[in-house]
Amino acid sequence: MPLVDSVLSGNRLALARLLTQVENDTPEGRAALDAIFTQTGQAHLIGVTGAPGTGKSSLVNQLALHYRRQSGALVAIVAVDPTSPFTGGALLGDRVRMRDLAGDPGVFIRSMATRGSLGGLAHTTAALTQVFDAAGYGIILIETVGAGQAEVDIARLAHTTLVVEAPGFGDDIQAIKAGILEIADILVLNKADQPGVEITERALRGMLELAHPTRRAFQHHGRIETMDAAASTPEKLWIPPILRTVAIQGQGFEELIGAIARHREHLRQSGDWTRRERARLESEVEALIQEALTAQFRASIPDAEYAEKLEQVFDHRLSPWEAVKELLDGRAATPAAARSRRSRETSQSRRKE
Amino acid sequence: MPLVDSVLSGNRLALARLLTQVENDTPEGRAALDAIFTQTGQAHLIGVTGAPGTGKSSLVNQLALHYRRQSGALVAIVAVDPTSPFTGGALLGDRVRMRDLAGDPGVFIRSMATRGSLGGLAHTTAALTQVFDAAGYGIILIETVGAGQAEVDIARLAHTTLVVEAPGFGDDIQAIKAGILEIADILVLNKADQPGVEITERALRGMLELAHPTRRAFQHHGRIETMDAAASTPEKLWIPPILRTVAIQGQGFEELIGAIARHREHLRQSGDWTRRERARLESEVEALIQEALTAQFRASIPDAEYAEKLEQVFDHRLSPWEAVKELLDGRAATPAAARSRRSRETSQSRRKE
Repeated sequence: MPLVDSVLSGNRLALARLLTQVENDTPEGRAALDAIFTQTGQAHLIGVTGAPGTGKSSLVNQLALHYRRQSGALVAIVAVDPTSPFTGGALLGDRVRMRDLAGDPGVFIRSMATRGSLGGLAHTTAALTQVFDAAGYGIILIETVGAGQAEVDIARLAHTTLVVEAPGFGDDIQAIKAGILEIADILVLNKADQPGVEITERALRGMLELAHPTRRAFQHHGRIETMDAAASTPEKLWIPPILRTVAIQGQGFEELIGAIARHREHLRQSGDWTRRERARLESEVEALIQEALTAQFRASIPDAEYAEKLEQVFDHRLSPWEAVKELLDGRAATPAAARSRRSRETSQSRRKE
Repeated sequence: MPLVDSVLSGNRLALARLLTQVENDTPEGRAALDAIFTQTGQAHLIGVTGAPGTGKSSLVNQLALHYRRQSGALVAIVAVDPTSPFTGGALLGDRVRMRDLAGDPGVFIRSMATRGSLGGLAHTTAALTQVFDAAGYGIILIETVGAGQAEVDIARLAHTTLVVEAPGFGDDIQAIKAGILEIADILVLNKADQPGVEITERALRGMLELAHPTRRAFQHHGRIETMDAAASTPEKLWIPPILRTVAIQGQGFEELIGAIARHREHLRQSGDWTRRERARLESEVEALIQEALTAQFRASIPDAEYAEKLEQVFDHRLSPWEAVKELLDGRAATPAAARSRRSRETSQSRRKE
C-alpha cells in the first residue's frame, strides 16, 4: 500500500492523509490499520486531562518541547475536544500551539473536534495513536478536556494519565473531580506560582488519601519526598505523586518527565504495561465484533419487517425485548436451520442466567 | 406474575423489590419489564442536571413537593450519581431527602450509585423509569450530577431537561458547561438570592445566544418577557427560558412548574414528544439486539479458539479487525452453510462501503 509505505518512511503529508482516512473510518483507513498493526506497540501513550483554565494545553506544549530537547523522540499530540461545535475549541488550541511548536518536524499535532457521538471517541483516538505509533512516534500525548466519561475511556487507552489542576478552584469544583482523580497516575498542579497553591495541594492530598488509602503512610510535605516514598514502595504499588509546574515559564518539567519515566518503569516491572495493552486490544476486538454482527444482522432482516416490529414497540403492543426475540427468531426462518435452533437456545439460556 | 400485579396495584414494597430486580438486570426483572411495557408511556420524564454546589438536590425535592401539592400526581425521583464509590454521594443525598419528603406515600425516591461502568447507566435508568411509569407515577424526576456524557445520554431519555446553575461560578467553569447547555430545555438559576446572580445570568444568556442564535431576537431583560417571547414563537421553536429559584426557600417553583408544563405542551404540539419516545425505544431495541447477538456469537465460538485469536492480536501478529474477520469466518464452518456465505458477503461489502 503506497500510502502506508510513505507513512512508515516518515512522510508527513502521507501521515496527515492517513490520519484523515482513519478518523473518517474509510475502507482505506481500515486496510491501512491492518497493514501497520504489526509495527505498533512501541509508543508511550500519555493522557493529559483537566478542566479548562488549568493551563492543560500549555502544559502539553511544554511537555512536547522538553521531550524533543531531552531525547529527540518523535512526539505526537492528539487533542480531543469534546466541547460543542460552536465553541471551536479544537481550532483555537491549534493556533496557540502553532506558535510554540511550529517548525519542528519532530512534532505532529492532530486535533479531533468530536461532532455528536462521543461513543466512538475512544475508538477513533486509539486508531489515530496506532498510526502515530507505527510511524515511529515514541511519545504520544493525548489531551482531553476534563468532562467525564470521555476521560475515563481515554485513560484506559493511555499508559500514563496526568490529571492537571490549578490553584483557585473552589471546593464545589473539587467534588466533581473526585472521579477524575481516580484515573490519575500523576497529578500536576499547574500555575503553581499563583496564590492558593498550598490550599489546592492540600485539598488534592486529602482527596488522594480517600482514593488511595495507602498513600497516607507516605505523606510528607513537599513533592519530592512523596515521589521518593512512591519509588521505594513495592513494584505493584504506585502512589500518584503531586508535581508542581508553571507551564508558561517551563518550570517543573524535568521533574514531571522524570515522574512519567518512573511510571513507565513501574508499569513494565509490575506487568501492568502488558495487562493494559491486552485489555485495550481485547475491548477493541469486542467492539469490532459487535459492529460486524449488528451489520450482518440488519442485512439479514428485511427493512419492512424491522420497521414493523419497531412500530409495534412504539405502539406499546410489544416490549423492546419481545421485539428483539421475535426479530432473532424471524431471522432464523432461513435455510440455516441449525442456526435457528442455536439462536433460540441461546436466547432462552440468556433469560435463565 | 404476582410481583408485577402487586406493583401495578400500588404496593410500595413490591415496587422497591421490582426496582432492585430491574437494576440488577435479573431474569425476573427482564420478564417484569416485558409484562409492564404495555402500561408505560404516560409519565413525564424530567431530567435535572447540574454541578455539585448548584443546589440541584434541594431543587429536585422542592419540585417534588410542589408537584404533590399542586396536582396530587405520584412523583418518583431517580437520583443517578456517577461519582466515585468512595464519595458515597448517593447515600448522602438520600439522607437529606428523607427529611424533606419522608412520610408522603405519593413520593418514591430511588438512588443509583453507579459502580464502574457508566455504559449501561442510561439503559438501567430507562428501565427504572418504565417501572415507575407503569406503577402510575406521572412525574419522574431524574437527577444527575453534571459530569459529561452521562448527562447527554440521560437528556435523550428525559422529555424535559433542566440544567441548574448557581451564581459565583467563574468563567473557566462556564466554558466546560457549554456542552451541557445545549441539552437544556429550561435553565434554572438557583440560589438566586446570592450575590453575582446578575453576572451569572448575563453569562448564561450569552452562551444561550451562541447555542440558539434565534434567541437573540427575543432578548429582554428579565425572565418573564423571555418566557412570553418563547410562548409566542411558532410551535416548532423552543427557546430555553432562564428561570430564577431559591430552592431552600421554595421560591420560583410555580413559574418553574409552569415552564415545564409549557415545554410538555410544546413537545406534544410539535410532535417532538412522539419523536423522542420513538428514538428512545429504537435505541433500546438496538442495544438489546447488540447484546443478544454478541452473547450468541460468543456461545458459538470455543473459548480456546477465541483466546488463541486474542493471543495473536496481543503478539501483534494479527490486527484486531483481521482477528474479527477470522473469528466470523471460523464460526461459519458449521453445518449452517448458508450463514457462512452470507457472513462472508456481508463482511466483504462492509469493507467496500
